[in-house]
Amino acid sequence: MTEQKASNITWHTASIQRADREKLLSQKGMVLWFTGLPASGKSTLAHAVEAKLYEAGHLTYVLDGDNIRHGLNKNLGFSPQDREENIRRIGEVAKLFADAGLITMTAFISPYRADREQARRLLQPDQFIEVYVKVSLSVAEQRDPKGLYKKARTGEIKEFTGISAPYEEPLNPELVVDTDILDLERSTALVLDLLKRRALSV
Amino acid sequence: MTEQKASNITWHTASIQRADREKLLSQKGMVLWFTGLPASGKSTLAHAVEAKLYEAGHLTYVLDGDNIRHGLNKNLGFSPQDREENIRRIGEVAKLFADAGLITMTAFISPYRADREQARRLLQPDQFIEVYVKVSLSVAEQRDPKGLYKKARTGEIKEFTGISAPYEEPLNPELVVDTDILDLERSTALVLDLLKRRALSV
Repeated sequence: MTEQKASNITWHTASIQRADREKLLSQKGMVLWFTGLPASGKSTLAHAVEAKLYEAGHLTYVLDGDNIRHGLNKNLGFSPQDREENIRRIGEVAKLFADAGLITMTAFISPYRADREQARRLLQPDQFIEVYVKVSLSVAEQRDPKGLYKKARTGEIKEFTGISAPYEEPLNPELVVDTDILDLERSTALVLDLLKRRALSV
Repeated sequence: MTEQKASNITWHTASIQRADREKLLSQKGMVLWFTGLPASGKSTLAHAVEAKLYEAGHLTYVLDGDNIRHGLNKNLGFSPQDREENIRRIGEVAKLFADAGLITMTAFISPYRADREQARRLLQPDQFIEVYVKVSLSVAEQRDPKGLYKKARTGEIKEFTGISAPYEEPLNPELVVDTDILDLERSTALVLDLLKRRALSV
């Protein structure tokens, strides 16, 4: 307890709050939580949304495998406990980014409902948007950009979500983007429309 | 390896980079790493700097015990391994915030040189500023805003930095702020002067 209390001095009244940063940025700090099967297009979509938001002058950040798995979560593997801790940390970091005023996007399979709900509970109801990037297994397997589904089918990769590990579909996501049907442009437009309804100028 | 690779699709070329966000914010993403004994004034100083930077239109974020110990690092205690992991995670999160373009401040005792050096190595040389918030033990004990030094002296708190646990002074910090001598206003001015020399308009 020592460190925590030692940091707890008397600055609180003077500190800059989320509302101040939101005013500076002319936007709302929030989390867009993209979830879906491997090769559903989560990262692709998040980065396409990011590019559009940037054009409109918004500050965003995408948390994904590239910047999390090699850094903050490099000491985690793929056991059930580690998968849970992986998503827990991502939820906590996303919360910090939202508190900093950023439109924060997370692009992880995040297969378990309970873990996603935990991330949601860290934020205010209007700060968390769950985007289910839906794809049929057959389409995902056709895409298979890294050949991972193939390796999962042959057993070379164990516990692969969709093949040999479960994916729990969201029951009440704020948005479903069906990438079997929609191309990237139309998928991106759906997310941006939702953000507009959340009173963002995008 | 499955999740990480699955996120590794073909978006890379289109993505928004740190330089883009820095342009949007008219500032450089960086980390100001405040280190020092309990009650040295790290958090106080970081939040005072934040207030001044906000006035000048800059986007900042302070990572400290308040938002880290109860969230991301709530599953860590105060064993040597947990202290190391505490600082490792903070360094990784600070790196993400700097990558997002924010002037990021961390306010933790961070008593070990090796841990601070690890945090430094995550960033570009011009992105990491170590600020040693220096205080003599006698002055820190006089301040003792939470009565923790007293409890450490009586043995009620074990392994308290400065009393019963080591603090390794920075050897080559970018800045030393001696809060035995300097009041908050002058301490804040020192940090802002350094940021000005780093080409920030503050």
